[in-house]
Amino acid sequence: MALPSEASASALQAFLLEYVPLARAAQIRVDAYDGSCLKVSAPLDANINDKGTAFGGSLYNLCVIAGWGMTCLLSQELGLDGDLVVAKGEIDYLRPLRGDLAAQVYRPEALALQHFHDYFLRKGRASLMHEIEVLDESGQPCVRFKGKYAIVKTEA
Amino acid sequence: MALPSEASASALQAFLLEYVPLARAAQIRVDAYDGSCLKVSAPLDANINDKGTAFGGSLYNLCVIAGWGMTCLLSQELGLDGDLVVAKGEIDYLRPLRGDLAAQVYRPEALALQHFHDYFLRKGRASLMHEIEVLDESGQPCVRFKGKYAIVKTEA
Repeated sequence: MALPSEASASALQAFLLEYVPLARAAQIRVDAYDGSCLKVSAPLDANINDKGTAFGGSLYNLCVIAGWGMTCLLSQELGLDGDLVVAKGEIDYLRPLRGDLAAQVYRPEALALQHFHDYFLRKGRASLMHEIEVLDESGQPCVRFKGKYAIVKTEA
Repeated sequence: MALPSEASASALQAFLLEYVPLARAAQIRVDAYDGSCLKVSAPLDANINDKGTAFGGSLYNLCVIAGWGMTCLLSQELGLDGDLVVAKGEIDYLRPLRGDLAAQVYRPEALALQHFHDYFLRKGRASLMHEIEVLDESGQPCVRFKGKYAIVKTEA
């Protein structure tokens, strides 16, 4: 399976829309990527629950995609080619979110990326952690997410 | 916000379809509830990823809904009235799932339920944990999920 055609927000958006029906249903948008931060969002309407707030599954969904997207963009920049999968996810729900969903994920520090790169070249697999918050309109965290992502060399 | 009209699989299904658009998009079905086990499922097609296996966000989604559903059904049986929310979720992805998604969640033991009931009556809030696995066709676990759910007395 191909990765997005290039390390850009628009290529990632097109890839998600094409290959992940649940991302399409959640109307997830890849808003921006500047090399150090990836921004994704989704409208409340498509992700609402019975209480009129963001559904817990949708909040996880946005975060897990944000982390996967960042891992994907970084892997392309580093020239690593393999299957990218989520290995583990943890999410704490701190307060209800009454507006649209937005998540930002930041580039890991250089040392962690170097290790990710070198380990993959040596072992054919490597993993990366991302921590992501979804904030409400006043900047208070609604969820805290931690995801572990693995890249695994595709079998020839 | 009302809970499902009765403690049955069909009432829970109707409730999810009406109030949770992402459950509708994922085509989640509430297959059965016999008082001790709740079975939910979803077709692979609506929940696939770029690798042709079940999308990690969809697997979480199914599990978090299964646990919420069980908490909801139990709360109704116990006569507890309040808002039901997921407080925390953890999921480990163990192997890819190449078929439809199916999860079962079991009734907690009597002592845990008694504690849930009594604590809610005393404090106006209580929580319950559910552990859920999604198995593949050969019975191997593909994901292990742990969710913490809270019931909070609705403000008058």
